[in-house]
Amino acid sequence: MSGPMFQRVALIGIGLIGSSISHAMRRRNLAGTIVGSAKTEKTREIALRLGLVAEVFEDPADAVKGADLVILCVPVGACGEIARRIAPNLAPGCILTDVGSVKAAVIRDVSPHVPPGVHFIPGHPIAGTEHSGPEAGFAELFDNRWCILTPVNGTDKEAVARLRRLWEEMGSNVEIMTAEHHDLVLAITSHVPHLIAYNIVNTAAHLERVTDSEVIKFSAGGFRDFTRIAASDPTMWRDVFLNNKEAVLEMLGRFTEDLTALQRAIRYGEGDTLFRLFSDARAIRRSIIEAGQDTPAPDFGRHQVKSAKPGGSSEK
Amino acid sequence: MSGPMFQRVALIGIGLIGSSISHAMRRRNLAGTIVGSAKTEKTREIALRLGLVAEVFEDPADAVKGADLVILCVPVGACGEIARRIAPNLAPGCILTDVGSVKAAVIRDVSPHVPPGVHFIPGHPIAGTEHSGPEAGFAELFDNRWCILTPVNGTDKEAVARLRRLWEEMGSNVEIMTAEHHDLVLAITSHVPHLIAYNIVNTAAHLERVTDSEVIKFSAGGFRDFTRIAASDPTMWRDVFLNNKEAVLEMLGRFTEDLTALQRAIRYGEGDTLFRLFSDARAIRRSIIEAGQDTPAPDFGRHQVKSAKPGGSSEK
Repeated sequence: MSGPMFQRVALIGIGLIGSSISHAMRRRNLAGTIVGSAKTEKTREIALRLGLVAEVFEDPADAVKGADLVILCVPVGACGEIARRIAPNLAPGCILTDVGSVKAAVIRDVSPHVPPGVHFIPGHPIAGTEHSGPEAGFAELFDNRWCILTPVNGTDKEAVARLRRLWEEMGSNVEIMTAEHHDLVLAITSHVPHLIAYNIVNTAAHLERVTDSEVIKFSAGGFRDFTRIAASDPTMWRDVFLNNKEAVLEMLGRFTEDLTALQRAIRYGEGDTLFRLFSDARAIRRSIIEAGQDTPAPDFGRHQVKSAKPGGSSEK
Repeated sequence: MSGPMFQRVALIGIGLIGSSISHAMRRRNLAGTIVGSAKTEKTREIALRLGLVAEVFEDPADAVKGADLVILCVPVGACGEIARRIAPNLAPGCILTDVGSVKAAVIRDVSPHVPPGVHFIPGHPIAGTEHSGPEAGFAELFDNRWCILTPVNGTDKEAVARLRRLWEEMGSNVEIMTAEHHDLVLAITSHVPHLIAYNIVNTAAHLERVTDSEVIKFSAGGFRDFTRIAASDPTMWRDVFLNNKEAVLEMLGRFTEDLTALQRAIRYGEGDTLFRLFSDARAIRRSIIEAGQDTPAPDFGRHQVKSAKPGGSSEK
């Protein structure tokens, strides 16, 4: 490549995703200058100290001045108000995008504020960890992960192609779909899984006959996998559920219906039904590993497989 | 230690747990000789080739001859029948134990067959991976994990102390409780989590408006964490649900009740309720890490954090 893809990038919000974008851009020299804004003094101080941004602002409207790319990296519930504040300072021709986990609501909230000549292209990198904040980011977060763009009809094709290339340069595969389809797909692959993870952690915490200390001690039996995803940022997830209500409720309805059938199979001792269903789930797991979206490493053992093993085990 | 703790150990079943026990025993020289039995020719051949056992038998009744420790490492539904078959060959004074995920049903099925003078002490190491079979085991599987023993009233104290020490030497912490309490604790920390993981994978596989390929591609948003635990051995899990019906149905009832309340909070847009609940879940996650039952590594990134990071990120 000859020179950076964008001259001046403004990151509005510098948490896990914002800081990872900075790392990923600097890894490949994709931006001339990266500036940013963050709500708290502490985040601004850390972002400067880590070199995530060259300049940092309290007011997002100051950060976007002269930027040819503005990325909203804030909880989806905050996008509309920020769009309203930055709109007067957006440069003509600039690309405005976001990273929110819900897309129809972001379009509903942001679009009315976007000035003519600014290209608003909603986006969502399907990547993250259970950690939050500017220190949680790393350059490899988007490598081999999918990023979904949901441009509305009539969006400038050239601008979409540029944004697609940016995500590809940051390591992602890119797919384009409608916001409505995105919200449905994510409801089942991400939103409902997070909700039931939060829910079982909550159920476990309120038992009378099993203590919290027992739940914690014996969590290696499966429970800890749920607590991992239930440790994700609460503000972000509150906003996801408030803003993708219809799709989440639809998927939750199906989940509960299926769970009720399973519960019935247990009550009536229908072993064959259980066995068939459990076997099917294994096949899907294999497909995910083949698609490079997870590793086959035996993670329940949690990386304890360090030493050379006596006895010639072929465990990999 | 002076000499091995047991002279001749018989592993009945040589899958993930049986093979890991062999590795863990040989790591610390805990057994004079380890022999075993396995149902399939293939497993017997692999077990010999990997050095997991010195001798292998098709019939468990042959494997237990002269053993001072017999460990049933088979799905809980198979324990009763195996106990019946091996009973005539169990040596007086020998300890008979198991590793099943359900304890009251194992006691119900095995106890009637145990000859006088044989010490039957049910056990359950809370450890595992999503892989199965004799090649899946490794010596570190039990390190810093809990093993629960559920001896019935009147069990020889000396025998319980010996079995406790064995598990400690294999790396575990040991706790003793009643079989009924074990089954309740495991229902919430292990059985229900596995059931809802299987269930959501099933729900996702039967959607009309979202394709399997989309579910797989975008699984990094949370779904893949469920497929990991839903990849566990189907026979083992069928037997768990058939044999811990009451406790699983009780915990499932609570889970569904809590989920219905959460669903209602989403429907009515109760953001504060959602935020409070999501924040509480984070605290439990921290406790699990502090208790050494999981690592704080950002596992959603799935070990992609390899290279030295530019820009001085403090990501650990």
